[in-house]
Amino acid sequence: MEKQVVHAIQDEYPDDFAWCYGCGRLNQEGHHFRTGWQGNKTITMYTPDEKHTAIPGFVYGGIIASLIDCHGTGSASLALHRKNGHEAGDGIAPPRFVTASLQVDFIKPTPQGTPLTAIGTLQEIHPKKWKVQTEVYAGGTLCARGEVVAVVMPSTFRASS
Amino acid sequence: MEKQVVHAIQDEYPDDFAWCYGCGRLNQEGHHFRTGWQGNKTITMYTPDEKHTAIPGFVYGGIIASLIDCHGTGSASLALHRKNGHEAGDGIAPPRFVTASLQVDFIKPTPQGTPLTAIGTLQEIHPKKWKVQTEVYAGGTLCARGEVVAVVMPSTFRASS
Repeated sequence: MEKQVVHAIQDEYPDDFAWCYGCGRLNQEGHHFRTGWQGNKTITMYTPDEKHTAIPGFVYGGIIASLIDCHGTGSASLALHRKNGHEAGDGIAPPRFVTASLQVDFIKPTPQGTPLTAIGTLQEIHPKKWKVQTEVYAGGTLCARGEVVAVVMPSTFRASS
Repeated sequence: MEKQVVHAIQDEYPDDFAWCYGCGRLNQEGHHFRTGWQGNKTITMYTPDEKHTAIPGFVYGGIIASLIDCHGTGSASLALHRKNGHEAGDGIAPPRFVTASLQVDFIKPTPQGTPLTAIGTLQEIHPKKWKVQTEVYAGGTLCARGEVVAVVMPSTFRASS
């Protein structure tokens, strides 16, 4: 398994769309989730901070949900980008997705201090809509399963103020 | 509508269980979600920070998921505590729940700078398991719907290290 994502799709988002608290490279206080291909699946690696506690010793579920969320939109972006003939790293701005729905099943308490790996499986359900099923591992242990439905960012998703 | 939750269930959690990044009163870097009754529904109010951005002007979905998550476990705790003859504020430690599953439908982009209100509707589905359906409003606008299945904290949810 890779130890680092080399060509992450989030590195390619236009600056205006790179402020996400989860995965925006320009949000200095965010998580900086980075998502790339691993074969025909997608991967995001992240080690939660000590403050991201549920009960001492275990990771807060909202962080796992956040990881699955941004892993989902990043995976969808990778997939549509590839379908359009591009790859992260080739200098072409990829499509930007937003989350329509997010589902998380918490299977086991997730230990703190262990790198988490999200692995995504993609399914196109419409030219502008992808389903991403994700498994989150802590070391070799499956701790959570998630599903994101991601849609190409609609024009309504613009700041009105 | 109340402007502040007076008797929040999170104020009553034992110290060992008050470190949650979402709702733990002792986690100085967390969100400090606080959940109380409003009639026969539950309420949590929260204004996301400026850094909690999705696209500039809109709130990050992972924060909304986090709000729904802790609102869900807090609501379940309120409900079982009441069923056991107690109320937040009466000095009795309430039961502590964990999240088995979390579902979020993002209905509209959630504007930043607006206080969010999560309103929960409770359903007991087992003596140790509750379903909490939540609507998240920004001002008067419904922005997200969520559902949490919360279970009484199992004994496996203890730090092994």
